[in-house]
Amino acid sequence: MAGGRPGEFELIERYFRPLATESGALRLLDDAAILRAGHHEDLVLTVDLIAEGVHFLPEDPPASIAQKALRVNLSDLSAKGAIPAAYLLALALPADWTEEWIAGFAAGLAEDQKRYGIALFGGDTSRASGGLTISITAIGRVPAGTMVQRSGARPGDRIFVSGTVGDSALGLGIRIGRFDRTAIGAGAGHLLDRYLHPQPRIDLAPVVRTFASASIDVSDGLVGDLAHVCRASGVSAKISADEVPLSDAARAALTVYPDALATILSGGDDYEILAAVPIDNASTFVETAKSAGVPVADIGCIVEGRDPPVVLGASGEVVQLQRSSHVHF
Amino acid sequence: MAGGRPGEFELIERYFRPLATESGALRLLDDAAILRAGHHEDLVLTVDLIAEGVHFLPEDPPASIAQKALRVNLSDLSAKGAIPAAYLLALALPADWTEEWIAGFAAGLAEDQKRYGIALFGGDTSRASGGLTISITAIGRVPAGTMVQRSGARPGDRIFVSGTVGDSALGLGIRIGRFDRTAIGAGAGHLLDRYLHPQPRIDLAPVVRTFASASIDVSDGLVGDLAHVCRASGVSAKISADEVPLSDAARAALTVYPDALATILSGGDDYEILAAVPIDNASTFVETAKSAGVPVADIGCIVEGRDPPVVLGASGEVVQLQRSSHVHF
Repeated sequence: MAGGRPGEFELIERYFRPLATESGALRLLDDAAILRAGHHEDLVLTVDLIAEGVHFLPEDPPASIAQKALRVNLSDLSAKGAIPAAYLLALALPADWTEEWIAGFAAGLAEDQKRYGIALFGGDTSRASGGLTISITAIGRVPAGTMVQRSGARPGDRIFVSGTVGDSALGLGIRIGRFDRTAIGAGAGHLLDRYLHPQPRIDLAPVVRTFASASIDVSDGLVGDLAHVCRASGVSAKISADEVPLSDAARAALTVYPDALATILSGGDDYEILAAVPIDNASTFVETAKSAGVPVADIGCIVEGRDPPVVLGASGEVVQLQRSSHVHF
Repeated sequence: MAGGRPGEFELIERYFRPLATESGALRLLDDAAILRAGHHEDLVLTVDLIAEGVHFLPEDPPASIAQKALRVNLSDLSAKGAIPAAYLLALALPADWTEEWIAGFAAGLAEDQKRYGIALFGGDTSRASGGLTISITAIGRVPAGTMVQRSGARPGDRIFVSGTVGDSALGLGIRIGRFDRTAIGAGAGHLLDRYLHPQPRIDLAPVVRTFASASIDVSDGLVGDLAHVCRASGVSAKISADEVPLSDAARAALTVYPDALATILSGGDDYEILAAVPIDNASTFVETAKSAGVPVADIGCIVEGRDPPVVLGASGEVVQLQRSSHVHF
């Protein structure tokens, strides 16, 4: 609650969940919905909205803004095990838009369409009454009945995360002056780039679909998104802070700012994949992910219970985080 | 062009059409795209964005705003002959949003979900940096290969429009003080309501799919949307101003403001269906539409040529319109 008003999760629960009357909508508890499409295939639907001053800064290059808008959706599809098929774009432009800006924006999309094998299937453009807002609906395909949900995690499953965690949140911290770029050193550029250019793990989608019991993309923050999986699955989890994979740049930042650990674990915008994998699948999952070019790290396990996930430090002590996730609201 | 910048159609043509690389996207020249879904069915995809101060006024009731956002999409589906299946909602909220507003907004959607047999399949909510923006992606279903496109009109086809034309644009004219409510009289309330509450012609969808050669929903204005059909089909058209169906309220407005004819013919936001129907299907089309509860009027015919459509007056003279369509941009 902020200022007496409900937060985003409460709004969804009170007002929007009752509208999700079809089973494929998964009560809006997942990153995407399932729409039946013939006997052999399901479509996976997801929508994300990004707004100036909230998800990006007005001075960001238009191609980067376009790519962030598209990639946050592709990241959702990947976590669900879906292959990108189509997207639709709604663009509300501020009064001072320029043709050059639009050209850059479209060029960013064109690049990503080639990179990720997706194409534009529809759009709408309007004046905005304020800053730029971009909403993208992405549609992916999975064999019928195989979309990986948040709700399938079972006690004993290992918890994996792809790539490295925290870079993007640290990059945003540098952008907004919370962390000093010079103090962090040579790796600061990498952190800034991770914030500006999320890298959806589309190569991991078929691997997740084959081996994972539950999956989510890390957008709200590692611990917060793990909590989403636990709640949906009716389980709890333990992860080791030391096992969370960090880039060299994030390690450098952590040396200068030891309390940046909370930012790393709960800052969000990682767009990595967090997956629960039954222990019998774990080694094959790691190998197959590696063959697909995506490193994954085992950071803990799913346990019985309903408590929020616990982060353990090097000596087995519980690491306290002020808040478990980043809220874009 | 406005202020040296390209208009919406030019923007789409220059920057977004090249991104529509799949055939189902119909080069963004139609109201919706086609996505194959198994052997028997196609999905019909459409997205519309509505923004405060552009498509609605901030003081409009939240339920009405929600319904307009949804219905403009359902109108696109209906014109394509598709049955509504799912929608996704992206909502950018201004800083001063209230829970009461959200409750009203969701109640409007709940009502329409029952009315039109559609359900929410996903959503995203964010702060906006300015006024409210709502983007809805709607998905409909048609038997494979049967989506009615803009491009199928052929010389000799009769041109039909459903319901009555111009009410909504006259209603907006009253709202913004261009027309005097009292002078128009008792029917003014009807005009205001048509602006606030578009009525998508979903009962006409199967009729259009069975009998029409081309179809579009009237959102940019009757003459402008007819021009879209003509361009896409490589034909021209002649319609009679006298045959355009008007409500009693619109007739009353026209008596007071004779030059409101241009507003009626090109003001937009009608959300009626404009269909080209081969002459052999015409009488069955009318009867079947009537059985479905939707009156349709024969307003003219498709002719050979590439010229913009012509509107003829009572004595066969050409009615000149300053501009043929309403631009939300």
